[in-house]
Parts: sequence; structure tokens; C-alpha cells
Amino acid sequence: MVVKEQAVVKEGLRGGQGHVVLYPILSAEELMGHATMYARVVIPPHCSIGWHQHVGNTEPYYILKGEGVFTDNDGTKTVVHAGDICKIRCGESHAIANESEEDMEMIALVVNEGPAE
Amino acid sequence: MVVKEQAVVKEGLRGGQGHVVLYPILSAEELMGHATMYARVVIPPHCSIGWHQHVGNTEPYYILKGEGVFTDNDGTKTVVHAGDICKIRCGESHAIANESEEDMEMIALVVNEGPAE
Repeated sequence: MVVKEQAVVKEGLRGGQGHVVLYPILSAEELMGHATMYARVVIPPHCSIGWHQHVGNTEPYYILKGEGVFTDNDGTKTVVHAGDICKIRCGESHAIANESEEDMEMIALVVNEGPAE
Repeated sequence: MVVKEQAVVKEGLRGGQGHVVLYPILSAEELMGHATMYARVVIPPHCSIGWHQHVGNTEPYYILKGEGVFTDNDGTKTVVHAGDICKIRCGESHAIANESEEDMEMIALVVNEGPAE
């Protein structure tokens, strides 16, 4: 089955600035308890996803387009571009911001730590 | 931790024509038994991933760029573009081909059906 992605706008995601636009790829139900979120994420200029912790799961960000500032668990900030993979371990925290004048895009996947729920 | 993606060339993937280039996002180990493959996939012009079945897992293709011809479980062929999500149920089969003159890109994720392995 081929379906078109659908935009979902989220304001202040995880306490971030402005809004981000999610384009879900699979629903939580379709992820069958193995993951809880799988989506393309567009972060407009000067918008961000706030600092948040992943207890019982992890969430790699895979950068598709534009420039982001990734904040890692230890507070380190790294400027990231297409082809960069921002990984955290289960239990760690992260954030990402678009401080540029162009949209930034990434794929986000929240993978559970334990057995399928 | 931020890491750069690394290309892995696969010839005749699933019996397909030519080659495809995989850019793994997480390893099977990092997917913790919930999924077995998560990668950006570049399919060059006139190359393809052959028809194959997913027993015990599913594999949505999320199209990022270019034009592909997706073959669904019932043999139906659909021309797909950026933003299209090609879904199959666990146990079903699929294939995808790039019949155009430009690269086609997608994200592939193989999600397990049962509990984490």
C-alpha cells in the first residue's frame, strides 16, 4: 500500500522554540511495540526541539538537509548536516536547534530498550 | 555522539538489477532486537531491489528523492516520489526499481513482528 505523508504541526516540542512539522512514516501501532515514533521532522529557521531525556528508549536523529545544532547528553554542541547521525544511549538526553535561515530536516526514530511492549 | 554515515555498496540486492548504496543509520545491535536494518538507500538509474518476502518482520520504504516503481504484495506497480510511504504487512513481499535517469533515495527500516529477539 502506498500512502502520502501527512503533516502534523507541533508547537514548543519538548519545550523547544517555535514549531516543528512532523511527517509520520509509521504509527505507533504499525511499529508493533518496538518503537513509538518514526517520522521525518522539519525544523524551520530559529525553531528547536528542547532538551529531553529518553528513559527506556533511544532516539537517533539522522540529518537529511540543512544545518542543525545538536546538543548531546554531556551538553556538547555540534553543528550537523546531511548524512550526520546523532546517537544517544537509552537513558540519555538531547536537543536540536535550527539556528540557520533555511529549513532543517531529519528522520527521528524512537526505539524501545526492552522487549516489545 | 555524532557520526558520519558510511556507504556500503550492495550488488544485485534481493536479486535486483545493478547495485544500490546503503547508508546505515543504526546497526542491528543498536536496534536492540526490535529491528534488523535501518538505512538510507540510494538506487541509481536502472537499478533495483528484487522481489522478496518479509517473514516475521515488515519493511516500509519512505521515499526521499527521485522516482521509483514500487511493486506491492499483490503485484500492483505504483510510481512513487518524495513523501510516499510504501507499506507492507508482515509476511508480505515487495520490490522497488528506479527506471528513471536520476538517483532515487529512500529510508528503509526492517521492524520485527514479535517480541525483541
